[in-house]
Amino acid sequence: MSDKHLSTEYDSELDGLRNRVLEMGGLAEAQVTQSLYALTHLHAETAAQVLRQEQRVNAMEVEIDHELSTIIARRQPTARDLRLLIAVSKSIGHLERIGDEAARIARIVNRLVGSGISSRLRPTILDTGHSGRMATELLRRALDAVARLDADEGVAVIRDDPELDAEFDGQMRRLVTTMIEDPRTISASIELVFVAKAIERVGDHAKALAEQVIYAARGDDVRHTPLDDMVTRPH
Amino acid sequence: MSDKHLSTEYDSELDGLRNRVLEMGGLAEAQVTQSLYALTHLHAETAAQVLRQEQRVNAMEVEIDHELSTIIARRQPTARDLRLLIAVSKSIGHLERIGDEAARIARIVNRLVGSGISSRLRPTILDTGHSGRMATELLRRALDAVARLDADEGVAVIRDDPELDAEFDGQMRRLVTTMIEDPRTISASIELVFVAKAIERVGDHAKALAEQVIYAARGDDVRHTPLDDMVTRPH
Repeated sequence: MSDKHLSTEYDSELDGLRNRVLEMGGLAEAQVTQSLYALTHLHAETAAQVLRQEQRVNAMEVEIDHELSTIIARRQPTARDLRLLIAVSKSIGHLERIGDEAARIARIVNRLVGSGISSRLRPTILDTGHSGRMATELLRRALDAVARLDADEGVAVIRDDPELDAEFDGQMRRLVTTMIEDPRTISASIELVFVAKAIERVGDHAKALAEQVIYAARGDDVRHTPLDDMVTRPH
Repeated sequence: MSDKHLSTEYDSELDGLRNRVLEMGGLAEAQVTQSLYALTHLHAETAAQVLRQEQRVNAMEVEIDHELSTIIARRQPTARDLRLLIAVSKSIGHLERIGDEAARIARIVNRLVGSGISSRLRPTILDTGHSGRMATELLRRALDAVARLDADEGVAVIRDDPELDAEFDGQMRRLVTTMIEDPRTISASIELVFVAKAIERVGDHAKALAEQVIYAARGDDVRHTPLDDMVTRPH
């Protein structure tokens, strides 16, 4: 076999891996969207569907991790490819945890549907739907950055994550007010506290995906780096 | 240089990496212990200390990740060593997130000390101290398993994590009861909900560390595997 042949085969292995990561990302994103639909419509069947799909996301993490160890062991990748492969390994961990958060929301929807929910909490659920859309949008942009290995879009995602954190803080204040005004809502409100937390975490994982894009594209490990240093760093 | 010389140098690189991971583990464990001390004693100075150390844990993650990419790129590790290196990469991610959870608890302690806390919540704080000790013990055992690359101890940690999850569920029920009985405790109780959640997550990360030990030692990827399959799988 010629070197060219070997190299083409290797390229197609890397492309295959990249497609699998994007497929897993699409699945994780769909899980989040569906769990939020299940929440805002209190729709138990959609929640059940999210829970059925959870194992698929988990299985993809294990499969992709296995593929990439095989590639590293066989191909002795260059520094740049190795960076990409390590970024893939970390990214799929975040995608798996995004799927976990969606499943968490789905399980809460099941409990809320089961126990019934006061109309007093309707505005809070809509509130959560709003921050959920912010998180989904951040995740979609992070996955776009992954697909195009676009470090600038990665930086933009990291810049916008604090908006979602601020939204979370506002939600907590509103939930506490609702509980104080009507203590009968306390049990259900605690469930919504955890929904809000899950949504905030989806945003955190979108940010972490963006950090991996920057690492793979530029070679800079920007985890725990102030935003200003990321933007002005020459590359 | 003889092969033997090269191999000895490589071995000492791997030993060095392993020591750094254990050092990082010790630091993360100390962070958790201190954050729980700060909570049960409402001791702001200890909370401040945890927050000062947070960056140290973060920096260690970045440094160790850098070291291990260098080793993979230079040494073309065998399948077994590669497995160990990938397990290290994932494990330090969990240690970093354990440090995050400790910092989360420390920030909550600061807020509780700042706003004052009703004596009505004293039992709940002690409750949290109890589950905190369960989580710290699980983490200590997971780190022992890492140090000795002991897959059997890893399985034992995974087996015991559900106890902590059950403790968390019990705490949630008691917190809801406290809030309903005395709505003036709601704001502070929500903070304690997040403390309980942080402690549960420390347990989840201890379990994830144990999974990585099993992967490194046996080559079995047991994430998302039912416990029975782990125990009976031949190795």
